[in-house]
Amino acid sequence: MPAELRRVCVIGAGAIGGLLAAHLSRVCEAWVLTRRPQHAEQLNREGLRISGKHEFVGRVHATADASELPDFDLGIIAVKANDLDNVGLRLTGLAPQATMMTIQNGLGAEAVIARHGDWPLISSVTFMSGTRRSDMHVEYELDTATWLGPWAGTGTDQATVDAVAALINASELNAEAMTDLVPAQWSKLIFNSAINSVSALTELPHVAAFVDEDEASSLGHVVRSLVDEGKAVAAAAGIELYEDPWEMNALAVRRGETSHSDYAHLPSMLEDVLAHRLTEVDFIAGALHREAERLGVPVPVTAAAHRLIKGKEASWRTGVKA
Amino acid sequence: MPAELRRVCVIGAGAIGGLLAAHLSRVCEAWVLTRRPQHAEQLNREGLRISGKHEFVGRVHATADASELPDFDLGIIAVKANDLDNVGLRLTGLAPQATMMTIQNGLGAEAVIARHGDWPLISSVTFMSGTRRSDMHVEYELDTATWLGPWAGTGTDQATVDAVAALINASELNAEAMTDLVPAQWSKLIFNSAINSVSALTELPHVAAFVDEDEASSLGHVVRSLVDEGKAVAAAAGIELYEDPWEMNALAVRRGETSHSDYAHLPSMLEDVLAHRLTEVDFIAGALHREAERLGVPVPVTAAAHRLIKGKEASWRTGVKA
Repeated sequence: MPAELRRVCVIGAGAIGGLLAAHLSRVCEAWVLTRRPQHAEQLNREGLRISGKHEFVGRVHATADASELPDFDLGIIAVKANDLDNVGLRLTGLAPQATMMTIQNGLGAEAVIARHGDWPLISSVTFMSGTRRSDMHVEYELDTATWLGPWAGTGTDQATVDAVAALINASELNAEAMTDLVPAQWSKLIFNSAINSVSALTELPHVAAFVDEDEASSLGHVVRSLVDEGKAVAAAAGIELYEDPWEMNALAVRRGETSHSDYAHLPSMLEDVLAHRLTEVDFIAGALHREAERLGVPVPVTAAAHRLIKGKEASWRTGVKA
Repeated sequence: MPAELRRVCVIGAGAIGGLLAAHLSRVCEAWVLTRRPQHAEQLNREGLRISGKHEFVGRVHATADASELPDFDLGIIAVKANDLDNVGLRLTGLAPQATMMTIQNGLGAEAVIARHGDWPLISSVTFMSGTRRSDMHVEYELDTATWLGPWAGTGTDQATVDAVAALINASELNAEAMTDLVPAQWSKLIFNSAINSVSALTELPHVAAFVDEDEASSLGHVVRSLVDEGKAVAAAAGIELYEDPWEMNALAVRRGETSHSDYAHLPSMLEDVLAHRLTEVDFIAGALHREAERLGVPVPVTAAAHRLIKGKEASWRTGVKA
């Protein structure tokens, strides 16, 4: 474990933040910045329980008051994309020596944080998953990797990225450092744009229908359209993808069919829809839509998905539903 | 009132069927074929109350047993498109001298009925609306017209179409006979494909957002895409539209903004979605999608809407939702 990463602060204690904080508490001093003071008190008193793939209680330090945080070496920003700007405000002026790592779905998280401080930034995408059972308990489901890379916007040192990956691996989560995360980030962006959009609009979990292209009315055609449009945008942006998003779709569906416990069928955007929470669509299909407009690539289905999901959010806000 | 239309049978006692049966009962003998025997008994006992634009109780004859129907001169098939095949089976062999009139949304209703008998068929589209308050009470909301025309598939006599329009007008509903209904039918098809699809997927009623094209993420762009794709299909099919579907959209939204009682904001497909009932998508966006494939016209957004709504229906059937 690299000497310079002695104290980590995880911002946000959802499923991903909870998994990271609890595991990291076994190899370094782990802090959690929560939104609610009561949540912080509970974590300080009872710790953070992990079940599923691993079973233990992580001893974390928690606070809801950012000014109470001691200086830390690594900040992992594990809130929803829509909360990034607010988190940036709370972190302004803190931990000037720290490296910050974003782990949101979609594109654009790093740029939001960069507006609030000069920290070197690490980009990451995660394929692990868990379910938040309570404020103090996360079930660890998929133990797949988190990929890390330096964010070009801050020219982050590769050695720091390698050290963060090593720390996460030492904590018994899976991490892989890359020199250029962009190809992987875009593969996951396109996968998420397709899967989350279709799931949010149909309210279907990620099931076999997402690969079904048998009939003219089959849902797999919509996933295919979204994936193909995303690939066209990536190509126009000069990005060579790491994995094929359609293959990621097929693999995830197969994994879901052969196991009833490992694969979380429920895309995060469907969770937001079912809870009538603002979704991350502006960072996912919306990000691809904006890139497409910038590059002059036609993306009719991606644009429609972006707009329909914004319309769906409006149906909760305006309360016009009969 | 033409002598040959002495007895009418309305099949289906939803809002549209109820409005027609109650009004027609004032100018001829009106029968109603219901699905539930109890519903027929109630209608025979208490009549069918109309409130709103008109206020009266229509005295109708009702039965749930098609074999109990006396010979009738005009059948008006006012069930949802998905029930047409079932209704055709129930009517097989009955009223051989009758003319049958379909009044469903979308395309293809006449062809389904034609499979079950040799009746001359009248096509119609209706712009009137009502809300079914109970089994015996329909509120009459929009008193706009119903347009009728001979169906080309059976070469129906124009004089019969004119007589049916005259009968409906005599009953104080509004009807207009046309020699070719196809242009109006397609205008309404394209309007419905756009409005019902966007409403079903966002769960928004037909509100001002449907004409909003201010931002890249505005919902009006989706309506515009669906309308433009529908127009391209119509053009390829050699159909000159009667009204511009985008103008119908704008007009309906304006009407909704200036009146709180007249315009039923709630598209019928949204009613189906909220009740988790099978929608008419296969006859609306699905019909345009099929025509587009036949004619080789690209309709990416219409195809996506068709498939997403089928996926949404699947989410209720399979019960896979978490």
